[in-house]
Amino acid sequence: MFLKGNLIAAPQLGVLDCLPGGCLHLAEDGTVLELLPRLPEDVGGEPVLDFGDCLVLQSFCDMHLHGPQYPMVGMGMDLPLLDWLQTYAFPVEARFADPTYARTVYRRLAGELVAGGTTRVVMFSSLHTDGTLVLMEELERAGVTGYVGKVSMDRNGAPELQETTDDACRELLRWLEACGEFRRIRPILTPRFTPSCTDALMTFLGKLAAERGLPVQSHLSENVAEMEWVRSLHPDCRQYWETYAKYGLWKPGTVMAHCVHSDGRERAAMAEHGVLAVHCADSNGNLCSGTAPVRAMLREGVSVALGSDIAGGALLYMPQVAAASIRASKVRAMADGSAFLTAAEAYYLATTAGQRYFGAGDGFAVGQKLHAVVLDDSRFSGDAGCSLPERLERALYRSAPADLRAVFSEGRRIR
Amino acid sequence: MFLKGNLIAAPQLGVLDCLPGGCLHLAEDGTVLELLPRLPEDVGGEPVLDFGDCLVLQSFCDMHLHGPQYPMVGMGMDLPLLDWLQTYAFPVEARFADPTYARTVYRRLAGELVAGGTTRVVMFSSLHTDGTLVLMEELERAGVTGYVGKVSMDRNGAPELQETTDDACRELLRWLEACGEFRRIRPILTPRFTPSCTDALMTFLGKLAAERGLPVQSHLSENVAEMEWVRSLHPDCRQYWETYAKYGLWKPGTVMAHCVHSDGRERAAMAEHGVLAVHCADSNGNLCSGTAPVRAMLREGVSVALGSDIAGGALLYMPQVAAASIRASKVRAMADGSAFLTAAEAYYLATTAGQRYFGAGDGFAVGQKLHAVVLDDSRFSGDAGCSLPERLERALYRSAPADLRAVFSEGRRIR
Repeated sequence: MFLKGNLIAAPQLGVLDCLPGGCLHLAEDGTVLELLPRLPEDVGGEPVLDFGDCLVLQSFCDMHLHGPQYPMVGMGMDLPLLDWLQTYAFPVEARFADPTYARTVYRRLAGELVAGGTTRVVMFSSLHTDGTLVLMEELERAGVTGYVGKVSMDRNGAPELQETTDDACRELLRWLEACGEFRRIRPILTPRFTPSCTDALMTFLGKLAAERGLPVQSHLSENVAEMEWVRSLHPDCRQYWETYAKYGLWKPGTVMAHCVHSDGRERAAMAEHGVLAVHCADSNGNLCSGTAPVRAMLREGVSVALGSDIAGGALLYMPQVAAASIRASKVRAMADGSAFLTAAEAYYLATTAGQRYFGAGDGFAVGQKLHAVVLDDSRFSGDAGCSLPERLERALYRSAPADLRAVFSEGRRIR
Repeated sequence: MFLKGNLIAAPQLGVLDCLPGGCLHLAEDGTVLELLPRLPEDVGGEPVLDFGDCLVLQSFCDMHLHGPQYPMVGMGMDLPLLDWLQTYAFPVEARFADPTYARTVYRRLAGELVAGGTTRVVMFSSLHTDGTLVLMEELERAGVTGYVGKVSMDRNGAPELQETTDDACRELLRWLEACGEFRRIRPILTPRFTPSCTDALMTFLGKLAAERGLPVQSHLSENVAEMEWVRSLHPDCRQYWETYAKYGLWKPGTVMAHCVHSDGRERAAMAEHGVLAVHCADSNGNLCSGTAPVRAMLREGVSVALGSDIAGGALLYMPQVAAASIRASKVRAMADGSAFLTAAEAYYLATTAGQRYFGAGDGFAVGQKLHAVVLDDSRFSGDAGCSLPERLERALYRSAPADLRAVFSEGRRIR
């Protein structure tokens, strides 16, 4: 099959590969065979999907978000992190003890992800095993791929949202057992954050990570009060990241959300151990956490990708998340003179950066199953003559899910 | 007529008047007669427009935007103000010498304003008289009300975008002459900013303002380099605002966009003279101008409203502009500990603050023609039980023009 349109890929940070009127040649199973500057004159009888003047972009990777906070997106933006968790997030998450409620909410969430062209995720569920399985089912059914984690939290939760250590361990095993049936959504170990897990639970998680080769996600250095709390809980650890390292949870494939206040030493530990930092610009602004040093991370060789972090973040559509990361980088630029993110860089961070985490190559990734969106920007382009990089920039700032004409995930058209 | 729904008004900064299942009683000409907690049992044969569980909000006031920059919204966000003007804004504005081009673009702009529920504006056109009249026609035809200004600029423009002083004065008079035909869009004197106008032109503008009682709009203290330039042009003026005051352009009804770097003395001059400060959060972030001291202004009695400032700003839909002002206030809060804007405050700034500038009352303004929008948030509310203030907050962060079911301007339904 041939998919024709204006192709824009971000193979590397800051680099755009543009093929105006180009096309993707796909195998029957949706594998990308080659990128062509134009449709061949002889297509050998293969079908042609011609998207005219639309933009064909890489689909998006949302590398940090909380499924059970979906009902509260855009509300309760008046508290800092720790108060916000107790007042808003924990009570909302507690409702996911009910799998029927979970089914309703997660189906809508999966639908909104697909509608917005997000085809890869690294997501927190709640601590509920059955609700987590429902989330995985709904994502897989909708065509979203990636990792979902049943949250582990056996301390400092809320009366309605906490496990005993025994339950936490047993339910984790039950959940992992039940994950065997999923093909495109895989499990990830998910200590909520250091204050949520006893040493016993952290030890258990580290052992599982090692024995089963499971990836790990958690939160890191999001908020100053949180960091002080972590220091008081682990006085033997010099920095927050070491509370994960101590239990074998700091390793290649570990995903750490936020890293707002990660200094040079903590960033060096990320670069050295192949830990992915997920920048959640909107959430960090909304909760007054701060502005992450993304330029420093990139310069120092830390892998960085983007997360919506709903519901600390209020933006689920990844082009808006990418624009939020540009805006946040300008706040940082005004404060410390660092170079802000360009549109090309933000697009890379929202696409290839996540794709690489999954080992799925760069740009449109020849040899991999297609992940792409087709974006119709004609409602903005009464004016002709814009270049493809300009149209990409405008799409980040101006487009909405309704502008997507098609979404491809893992080689299949899912919208 | 009765208009029924969940009414939310912002009569004062930080105050929400909520009437769940309430209704507006309107005269035949669209004047608001009264607000009722519920639909009367006997409506006396008057028609009832029942919007069910939708939110009925005040419509929005965009108090600073550049019509001729509409073609470039969301593009060219990589330069600070003065370079951005020369590289992007001036060449784009120059095209509005062609009234046919202006017609096409301004019709789309007016349509997008109405679609987004913006029914009042204070807008810059370009320096072109005919193009400006086209803009006024298109806004009036679409149902938008407010002020539009033909830009005055007789120095420091671009070869393709500058007037001689003589032309500037003559065209201004020709334009004002032609404005007689408009009913809901009225003229406002518009020196682009101090560096764009010779002393002779400023003198002429001040004379016109006094003789004809015309309002004035311009830019103030947006960017540090701009402020230095102004100081070098008017060494006799201690502060930027005094370069307007010197010519009689600093008076009640004067609208000053940005005021990012206005210190206590400049803010006191605003409060004292009844000058409106228009906060353009997204633009100030995009162009790395800074973050305006909105909380200080409000505390000190300065009137503040919001502007999209397209195309320095990339957001035209005012709920997003309001959310951007909250986000910017958190940047400021993190830097100086000032209280950030609440959702209720941002809603006030996007509605009543502008309405008051036009002398059109507070909230739904009994005795005035209705300006309102009907917002259907059912796609977010799979989960019941949210309060009206929570739903308002979510609407600021999450809604899109497509969620508006109706828009009323000056008593008429325009969408």
